[in-house]
Amino acid sequence: MKVVALAGGVGGAKLADGLAHCLSPDELTIIVNSADDFEHFGLHISPDLDTVCYTLAGIANPQSGWGRIEESWVTLTELKRLEAPVWFQLGDRDLATHLERTRRLREGETLSQITAHFCRVWGVAHPILPMSDDPVRTWVLTEEGELPFQEYFVRYGFQPVVRDFQFRGAESAQPAPGVIEALSQADVIIFCPSNPFVSIDPILTITGVRKACLQHKVVAISPIVGGKALKGPAAKMFTELGIPPSPLAVAQHYAGLMNSLVLDTLDAQFELEIQQLGIQTLVTNTFMNSPLDRYNLAQAILMAIESGRL
Amino acid sequence: MKVVALAGGVGGAKLADGLAHCLSPDELTIIVNSADDFEHFGLHISPDLDTVCYTLAGIANPQSGWGRIEESWVTLTELKRLEAPVWFQLGDRDLATHLERTRRLREGETLSQITAHFCRVWGVAHPILPMSDDPVRTWVLTEEGELPFQEYFVRYGFQPVVRDFQFRGAESAQPAPGVIEALSQADVIIFCPSNPFVSIDPILTITGVRKACLQHKVVAISPIVGGKALKGPAAKMFTELGIPPSPLAVAQHYAGLMNSLVLDTLDAQFELEIQQLGIQTLVTNTFMNSPLDRYNLAQAILMAIESGRL
Repeated sequence: MKVVALAGGVGGAKLADGLAHCLSPDELTIIVNSADDFEHFGLHISPDLDTVCYTLAGIANPQSGWGRIEESWVTLTELKRLEAPVWFQLGDRDLATHLERTRRLREGETLSQITAHFCRVWGVAHPILPMSDDPVRTWVLTEEGELPFQEYFVRYGFQPVVRDFQFRGAESAQPAPGVIEALSQADVIIFCPSNPFVSIDPILTITGVRKACLQHKVVAISPIVGGKALKGPAAKMFTELGIPPSPLAVAQHYAGLMNSLVLDTLDAQFELEIQQLGIQTLVTNTFMNSPLDRYNLAQAILMAIESGRL
Repeated sequence: MKVVALAGGVGGAKLADGLAHCLSPDELTIIVNSADDFEHFGLHISPDLDTVCYTLAGIANPQSGWGRIEESWVTLTELKRLEAPVWFQLGDRDLATHLERTRRLREGETLSQITAHFCRVWGVAHPILPMSDDPVRTWVLTEEGELPFQEYFVRYGFQPVVRDFQFRGAESAQPAPGVIEALSQADVIIFCPSNPFVSIDPILTITGVRKACLQHKVVAISPIVGGKALKGPAAKMFTELGIPPSPLAVAQHYAGLMNSLVLDTLDAQFELEIQQLGIQTLVTNTFMNSPLDRYNLAQAILMAIESGRL
């Protein structure tokens, strides 16, 4: 079975890791949101790509889900002393990734070439592709004005009330090499349990991606469980946009694009209503607190797809 | 007495530190070469400014003379793992300086504003000015082609044979704020024992600096002792340009611009020949192996100036 997973940050990275333990590198391609990339201290930082790569490499911080395991903070401590803005946590190991990515970009390499190089060094065999090598930047339109995504997300702790989202540059951005090829050969496209608004939607804006989704089986995993997001602002965003956060809201968000939804046992009461939208469902434990949880969820999803249940 | 010291890297920083222990912040201004600045990993690095600032702040590595004391190398170790070029030693503490300088430059601050900010944070009271806020870049014309200074100096360990030097951008570079004011009020201008070709000469190319030197008493300290440079390629450069390295060669290099030369007791035999050029001399110990040495040399120079000996 050929699988393409669309992923954002921590939640997406965890399921992608589970899938990578079930499928060979020939069977799984991971396409990652790059619209949360930003420039900070002159460095090009790709938070979602880093989280997915670190997680699959087994070098992610297991507590936070982002950043590096066994990280140190010498540079950040000095930056504080220099009265620098330190709202974005730059660990010493993590910094090397940003420095070398920036250097290679300036040498003319593409984001996907650099990601492939990092994956080779880190021993990640499954292809991880940025959605695009061209700059796409998520802006969050809030009641307090428009904010670049990382400012909204990290600097202001996603407190401003959202009104809308823009993916600037998306119209002219080309899919990264391999993205359309992988999607066209996919037996199933999986929307990982990432934020629909700011992780999955930016990937869907890239030329050809939405069309590929319409032509293939799409299985989404609800990032909303028990009315909350397991991590991040997804539930808060639904609420601020006037929609009660639930797997049903996720199903409606992806309406027309998605064939099946995986929802948590805590949300079993939504199953019937979702099925009435013509969407197949799988109710299972979707919490991924351990590597085994990731594997079990991935395995449950893949078995449901193989058996025709999804 | 109002003193302006022109300085490059390690040797210049040490004498500047000695002078700072003899003179108040009102009495001493240090003007630093910024033509060895370069971009690396997207960061703006100012090696000579950093060396002078770290030294006066008491946070320089006392063994090497450059970089930070109690430094760690977590990021550099990761960069090696990523197969990044690691010929320029980026310590974790040092990196914070480059990151914050780069960030502030991108925010529109000038190199001199940023240097002043760093000095305030680090508790350095004496004014340290870059020669210019505009980009000037030293290129070394060698038998193996032309090289940006840091590549020649660090990457290739100053092994290529030099033919000439270029200070690109110098024609249009304006002196940094305070440079001409300090020079015009100086009772004496001191050329620290820095490399004449690549540390002091770039400062002299900045509009108004050479003219100010012609109008004031100038005292140079020979960076050549016993036919060798205490550090770096100064002696090698003299040799490759066909000039036997000696305090006499230094005196001739600065001919017409300099009134007095301080030379080491090891080179006392050159004193008469230098005096015959119309240059006053002071023969003393110029080795600066300890903070006390720095202070003693600075004190000896200042006393010789005050007594009219220099």
